[in-house]
Amino acid sequence: MTSTPRSPLVALAACTVALLVAAPLAGQSGPEIARAWRDAHGPGIIRDYAEFLSYPNNASDTESIRRTATWIRDRLRGEGVESELLELDDGVPPIVYGRLDVPGATRTLGLYVHYDGQPADPTNWTHAPWEPTLYSAAMEAGGTVRPLPRDGEAVDPEWRIYARSAGDDKAPIGALLPVLEAFKEGGVIPTSNLVFFFEGEEEAGSDHLGEYLDRYRDRIDDIDVWLFFDGPAHQSGRPQLTFGVRGVTGMEVTVYGPVRPLHSGHYGNWAPVPGQMLAQLLASMKDEQGKVLIDGFYDTVEPLGPEEQAALEALPDYDEELKRELGLMWTEGEPQTLAERLLLPSLTVRGLSSGNTGKLARNVIPATATATLGIRLVKGNDPEHMADLVEAHIRAQGYHVVREDPDMATRLTYPKIAKVARGNGYPAARTSMDDPFVQEVISAARAAADQAFGDNSLVLTPALGGSLPLYLFSDGLHKPFVNVPIANHDDNQHAPDENLRVANLWYAIELYAQLLTMPRKVVP
Amino acid sequence: MTSTPRSPLVALAACTVALLVAAPLAGQSGPEIARAWRDAHGPGIIRDYAEFLSYPNNASDTESIRRTATWIRDRLRGEGVESELLELDDGVPPIVYGRLDVPGATRTLGLYVHYDGQPADPTNWTHAPWEPTLYSAAMEAGGTVRPLPRDGEAVDPEWRIYARSAGDDKAPIGALLPVLEAFKEGGVIPTSNLVFFFEGEEEAGSDHLGEYLDRYRDRIDDIDVWLFFDGPAHQSGRPQLTFGVRGVTGMEVTVYGPVRPLHSGHYGNWAPVPGQMLAQLLASMKDEQGKVLIDGFYDTVEPLGPEEQAALEALPDYDEELKRELGLMWTEGEPQTLAERLLLPSLTVRGLSSGNTGKLARNVIPATATATLGIRLVKGNDPEHMADLVEAHIRAQGYHVVREDPDMATRLTYPKIAKVARGNGYPAARTSMDDPFVQEVISAARAAADQAFGDNSLVLTPALGGSLPLYLFSDGLHKPFVNVPIANHDDNQHAPDENLRVANLWYAIELYAQLLTMPRKVVP
Repeated sequence: MTSTPRSPLVALAACTVALLVAAPLAGQSGPEIARAWRDAHGPGIIRDYAEFLSYPNNASDTESIRRTATWIRDRLRGEGVESELLELDDGVPPIVYGRLDVPGATRTLGLYVHYDGQPADPTNWTHAPWEPTLYSAAMEAGGTVRPLPRDGEAVDPEWRIYARSAGDDKAPIGALLPVLEAFKEGGVIPTSNLVFFFEGEEEAGSDHLGEYLDRYRDRIDDIDVWLFFDGPAHQSGRPQLTFGVRGVTGMEVTVYGPVRPLHSGHYGNWAPVPGQMLAQLLASMKDEQGKVLIDGFYDTVEPLGPEEQAALEALPDYDEELKRELGLMWTEGEPQTLAERLLLPSLTVRGLSSGNTGKLARNVIPATATATLGIRLVKGNDPEHMADLVEAHIRAQGYHVVREDPDMATRLTYPKIAKVARGNGYPAARTSMDDPFVQEVISAARAAADQAFGDNSLVLTPALGGSLPLYLFSDGLHKPFVNVPIANHDDNQHAPDENLRVANLWYAIELYAQLLTMPRKVVP
Repeated sequence: MTSTPRSPLVALAACTVALLVAAPLAGQSGPEIARAWRDAHGPGIIRDYAEFLSYPNNASDTESIRRTATWIRDRLRGEGVESELLELDDGVPPIVYGRLDVPGATRTLGLYVHYDGQPADPTNWTHAPWEPTLYSAAMEAGGTVRPLPRDGEAVDPEWRIYARSAGDDKAPIGALLPVLEAFKEGGVIPTSNLVFFFEGEEEAGSDHLGEYLDRYRDRIDDIDVWLFFDGPAHQSGRPQLTFGVRGVTGMEVTVYGPVRPLHSGHYGNWAPVPGQMLAQLLASMKDEQGKVLIDGFYDTVEPLGPEEQAALEALPDYDEELKRELGLMWTEGEPQTLAERLLLPSLTVRGLSSGNTGKLARNVIPATATATLGIRLVKGNDPEHMADLVEAHIRAQGYHVVREDPDMATRLTYPKIAKVARGNGYPAARTSMDDPFVQEVISAARAAADQAFGDNSLVLTPALGGSLPLYLFSDGLHKPFVNVPIANHDDNQHAPDENLRVANLWYAIELYAQLLTMPRKVVP
């Protein structure tokens, strides 16, 4: 299919007429028109989304992922967006790229979505992962299967549609397409240029994202602010915006006892026990309240600005409920809240192994003990530097650090030996909430949240605890970003029976309509 | 086959003639006669032992183990020993029991051997485990396969015979039978009553040993001293006697974080990390020099007597060589030696697990972390009491101790929870080296060692580090015991290519001849 202009919007964009003003139908605002469209065409929007959800989207399934990308490209074209697939080498999922240039726009929004999903093992799902199934409510709440709605049928916002990627991350596309269609049909012209940038291997690690951004730099260079349409709402159920993600690095540390496992009777009390050595090493890294004791670990943390500080203080207090749900009577660093703790770097024992436990345990002093350490980073922390600090701490405990298993000569030179295998890492990213583009996004999202969830419902979260390579945008492209999640917090993302609550799809339509019609910037 | 008396010895035993004196041929001593027999019949002794080694002897292989037991019983009968199989329930390997009563004897020796062996995986062996193969020397020393010797052929003491149980623990039977035959043919009458008690499930854990000792108590009650023919020579290669074994107990300790594994980004720095908690708990139990910090851990250790203390000081210093071999630059409790350390209870991290390490490591805070702790006990330590001390220490670190995984109510009551699953245990056993029976055994073994390995070669080891349920004899029967090993120290016991050095079989013949003709006790 060629990219023949077929809609007024594209025609307008092609003309690049200066200072053209949006001319909505009957004097209605963009959000009002989108809302009316949603109310009139709800069943069709749901059926359309169900069709999209039926496309398998595992990044490693080259054929399926390309079919999904092509479907999106064609649907964008159908809504008047100039759209194409950006490519790298064979086998790399393409970027679905699109532009909608608005004459006289003083701002360009980058809209990021990822259209690939986590792998899914069908045996753990109630229905096949790519056979979208509508429920009258959440399964846990007693919902039952119901048919997709017919035109004219009333839509219950508590309906849930179950399928892989229903929440993470096809939902933004399921909401963007009807907004574009409503605007096209209603004559609403967005107030910003729009660049659509939909990734196809986020769940597989975004290995080629940096290369795409480099290779196609000219296609994205005019973006003023990136909106990441990904992730779920706040755990309280309220809508949120987030302005940062933690970076990540890590290492695997192995300490050595005797060259071979020894009989724990014949040598126990004499041969060094690697599990004991490792316990002592790990205990030296962190105190019982969760404070990391490694020299300099907190030194490079960038302080929060006043907006971040205010947002942090305004966050809903959800810790006690979360602790109850997780069976926890204490947390690291208390009385600091989870949100506060996510603004600090963390050191986590992700895995431990030495010999065997349980039925396979044997009467041995094992030869080695290994810990996998995860390190999450915040703004200001350099991944290499942070790993250096941990390694320096290991050396300070008397260990000789090696990169390979030690040979006999090394063993007979150094009393304590630790192999440190560093993982890949990348830095945190945080956008200043004071940035003028970011402030505009906050205003638009607040309007949508007030409309959909009630006044002052929007939660502003300075940073998520998880890691995404958003530094490619903030540090690589020097552009602000805002993470704009819409899925329900209980969407089972990455898990079986992933789902989207229809109310959240409806909220996304409201939100995107607001974002696409933010007041024009006054150019000084 | 019935137990018809067929030899002068049995006839004599049946007569129970008082004060009968041994009347060796041509005025030679028992050891001299045994030595001459060995020199004259060496090839036959080796061929005979090879036949015995061809009998599979895995305790769980009911049919094979019974065939092996029957072979031994019949061979004992052939040497004039009244012999039978003692039985418990179906499927329990029988005890091969035998008696040789000597008129006028003032002492009864209990001779313990185990005729079962460790399981063997043939794929790891150079030759099939139960196809005995003679080598011109140890494989590692360049030895090659050679045929079994013909009568009259010269025997090289460096020959090695490879088969499962060659060292552990058929060797004593391979040496006892020719000694009995030499004595029978040479007219040597032992100076003690002999009770043969050969176990068939030592390698499977001796689960029925206590029951056998109870059920057949009348058959063993007159034994004055038990000789355990098991185990290898000292690591220096020198012959040894040992007078104790450590007891054993243990536990598996699991500590709990969140009720399910959590994303290490979204919750890292807030949710308790069980691997970290476990590291802190283990680190609190033992210092970096290997001293156990648990209150009372060393309080019940019985002090050594003067004989033990002297033996300890006379032990060969083998630690530096062992450290080199094991790639160790330090040991727990140094400068104490291995032998000294084995006289103290030990606490060993035998296994550690939490989440995954290596390729399977995931970005999670695992829900649990587990350590398998081994505790070795010395004379004076009660297994239950020692486990109580460890558990009290865990409680003192703020843990609520449970026996099952905690439910939500328990989780929401106690901040720190540890599941402690105790293993079975039994106490250490140690014989006083001052005991008069034990002193006689030492003298006889010293004579044999001087003869076979040179003057003052015998090593007296107060206690082995490993565990055997010898408390059944020392504490249960209130009888002294001596462990009298004969196998070469490098016999690969429990491992592939197990072997016996012929020189060690020859030493066993010398040793048993000495033990069976120890000077009669003077009855006051």
